[in-house]
Amino acid sequence: MKLAVVGLGLIGASVAKALAGRASITGIDRDPGAVKKALDQGVISRGGSDPSLARGSEIVVIAVPVGSIVGAAGDLIPHLDANAVITDTGSTKEAIVRAIDALWPCFVGSHPIAGKENPGFGASQPDLFSGKVTILTPGAATRNSCLQRVRSLWEACGSKVVEMDPVQHDGLMARISHMPHLLSFASMGLAHDLHIHRELLGAGFRDFTRIAASDPVMWRDIFLANREQLLELVESYIRELEAMAAIIRQGRSEELEELLRGYSSLRRELYASAR
Amino acid sequence: MKLAVVGLGLIGASVAKALAGRASITGIDRDPGAVKKALDQGVISRGGSDPSLARGSEIVVIAVPVGSIVGAAGDLIPHLDANAVITDTGSTKEAIVRAIDALWPCFVGSHPIAGKENPGFGASQPDLFSGKVTILTPGAATRNSCLQRVRSLWEACGSKVVEMDPVQHDGLMARISHMPHLLSFASMGLAHDLHIHRELLGAGFRDFTRIAASDPVMWRDIFLANREQLLELVESYIRELEAMAAIIRQGRSEELEELLRGYSSLRRELYASAR
Repeated sequence: MKLAVVGLGLIGASVAKALAGRASITGIDRDPGAVKKALDQGVISRGGSDPSLARGSEIVVIAVPVGSIVGAAGDLIPHLDANAVITDTGSTKEAIVRAIDALWPCFVGSHPIAGKENPGFGASQPDLFSGKVTILTPGAATRNSCLQRVRSLWEACGSKVVEMDPVQHDGLMARISHMPHLLSFASMGLAHDLHIHRELLGAGFRDFTRIAASDPVMWRDIFLANREQLLELVESYIRELEAMAAIIRQGRSEELEELLRGYSSLRRELYASAR
Repeated sequence: MKLAVVGLGLIGASVAKALAGRASITGIDRDPGAVKKALDQGVISRGGSDPSLARGSEIVVIAVPVGSIVGAAGDLIPHLDANAVITDTGSTKEAIVRAIDALWPCFVGSHPIAGKENPGFGASQPDLFSGKVTILTPGAATRNSCLQRVRSLWEACGSKVVEMDPVQHDGLMARISHMPHLLSFASMGLAHDLHIHRELLGAGFRDFTRIAASDPVMWRDIFLANREQLLELVESYIRELEAMAAIIRQGRSEELEELLRGYSSLRRELYASAR
């Protein structure tokens, strides 16, 4: 299999590492340092910054921040063979699928659910996708042969694969990923002079704020790309907070306990099968 | 050392387990099942539900939910020797210290920073406080001899000890513990039908919502006891969210990236020494 990976950050380099030895892999990244590391470590067999390096690839994986994916596809397409399949790894799908479907006949959007807050080549690992889920978001006109080739790619990386409509994907991700990140980022607005109390930070604070350390460019792009669904949720959340604040302010003790009991039960049920 | 532990939940039973073999420990809990388990496992040498069992104790540790601590102290005091020291383990301190200081001449508030979301005897462990910090909140009139006895108790449990003014303690905890819990609880308001997508929940969602599984009675009491400082922070947080939402809605890309970069740097700096 001849594979090109565009973007040798956490996700792209992890794809290359997962498939190293089983595919001929070309790495394309505007950062010469990342390309050199990938070459030195034998993760890719050739690399550079020029999109024309993708010529001859059977599969192209675009693993750059959400806001740069469509542009990267446009740069690559003049160099691709007609039978090449393109996929991406972006955390939002609706706008990306619509744009690239208009540019290329064999595109399938992918979203591997396998992030961590440290970005970059140095954080990549061959088993990043192992046992995790990758969501594929085919459009109405997607050819089944293209879909199957992208499915095989992720399965070869050790991932389970599910399919979902792009709009449904973005709505779900707004709730289970984009909102938690936005809320965790925003909580840092209350933390500006906490460095003097570092040893007092408990496990709750640590876990709640872990994703606030995430990559700012990646999340800027995600928040902007999924803004409509996200902003609706922010409004719902503010109403939830205001209702809770009113209950606390007025000392409605029984009501508060019931509310917290419901939240706590819901969280426990969500993970009941994983315990 | 003759010790009485009132409340054999996560914190109280962990104190007893930490000191088992080095103290004569009486366990007092209204739940006969918890007392029986503690006796059967040799964690306490005697126990029951009657406050008079505390008679003859040199130290009494009140480890019940915040809203029940002052009442428990009132029930115990008629039975105590004049030289007994009382401490508690509540996550809020101002109101508790004020109330019990008025009832007993040798009280020192404690807050071990060692929670986890699973409550109850079954979750207790002898090393829960090991390497963790316990905050002591003496008042202006606290006798040094009482303070030193409580300090020794926590050090014997393996804890580091720091001292802090009760009001300052509650302000700090509102920011690093009570707000994260409130925000994580509230996020469950957006999660009501997520059970169908369980396998898609990533590490971000898992960690962000972990503390939403916390005990509802414990957190009801904490939110009500610290409501003034907490509600101010809820208002600040809502303003932070509204500002962020406006930036996203208007697509102010550079500003959004700068904001996220600041949050991300702050989170990384907070834990830089722990990495």
